[in-house]
Amino acid sequence: MDYYSSQITKLIQELSKLPGIGAKSAQRLAFHIINMPMEQVEELAGAMTGAKKNVRYCKECFTLTDQELCPICSSDRRDHKIIMVVENTRDLAAYEKTGKYEGVYHVLHGAISPMLGIGPNDIKLKELMQRLQSEVEEVIIATNSSLEGETTAMYISKLIKPTGIKVTRIASGVPVGGDLEYIDEVTLLRALEGRTEL
Amino acid sequence: MDYYSSQITKLIQELSKLPGIGAKSAQRLAFHIINMPMEQVEELAGAMTGAKKNVRYCKECFTLTDQELCPICSSDRRDHKIIMVVENTRDLAAYEKTGKYEGVYHVLHGAISPMLGIGPNDIKLKELMQRLQSEVEEVIIATNSSLEGETTAMYISKLIKPTGIKVTRIASGVPVGGDLEYIDEVTLLRALEGRTEL
Repeated sequence: MDYYSSQITKLIQELSKLPGIGAKSAQRLAFHIINMPMEQVEELAGAMTGAKKNVRYCKECFTLTDQELCPICSSDRRDHKIIMVVENTRDLAAYEKTGKYEGVYHVLHGAISPMLGIGPNDIKLKELMQRLQSEVEEVIIATNSSLEGETTAMYISKLIKPTGIKVTRIASGVPVGGDLEYIDEVTLLRALEGRTEL
Repeated sequence: MDYYSSQITKLIQELSKLPGIGAKSAQRLAFHIINMPMEQVEELAGAMTGAKKNVRYCKECFTLTDQELCPICSSDRRDHKIIMVVENTRDLAAYEKTGKYEGVYHVLHGAISPMLGIGPNDIKLKELMQRLQSEVEEVIIATNSSLEGETTAMYISKLIKPTGIKVTRIASGVPVGGDLEYIDEVTLLRALEGRTEL
């Protein structure tokens, strides 16, 4: 790419390392950035290094946060006796967007996957068990509906059962608005199994 | 988005200002950046501010460069008597990738568009005319094959004709590997008009 000067090439290379950004997008982004006002570029660059420097795990639920305790764990309007277990911070955000869940979370940062060599000790499971020593009424397992997510859900439920704390799993079935015709068989069977009386 | 801490929210916001990056991608990118090693984040942020600070127009051809003269204009292996006129630096890069063009370029930074209120004085046209005062044999107009690109090509050719310098336009037609069935009528007609004897 020596038809670009080194600084442009460098920027394109750095941008194309990001997930989902190919060579063409990196090029388009690079020229966009070069044409942005200086203060905006500094804002963007600063947001990156700032977030990287200051963001860490919440010491309670292990979500990503820039404080010691995340906004949810430090809120007294949340029910701290109900813990929803999710695989990552994005899943937490997805449930927060519903605006209806009033409990707290626990972020595992992964799921058990024998295939990828990820065992129970590679995710924040020990930390979850420690949290159960304080007063907890229910653990809602909201790992993904994938092989890894299901494996993790089973593993956690077996681990918690002996403590007598209620363990639940979010429902799996046909998405709202989903057209049966286009839904895979496993989901359809799951929806059938999970049917409720009207 | 108060379920994310402020620094994460800020990063997501800054990223989603970039072209082609929606809310979901911005979120995914933000978490990716937070999980990157610190030195990589600094590398990326530095590439942005570095490029922004140091990149300017080549004083000869007006492409973006971090030197006074771009690598192409300062090369003595290029034919400085042939100037290809393009709309922007990305178009220049597209031709450079072919590896076959040996002349130099002139980057207009736009095209004439009465609709958008972009006139001849809003692009680097005066600068092109100035370059023609030194020894130039041919000006190849490689603006896009769009309404604006064609208008610009016509305008430039009329401007240059009186000087006696040869003005050419890149061919317009069916792209190589293109299936006639899927090509628009205007392109098909253009290909017919531009037919060459075999």
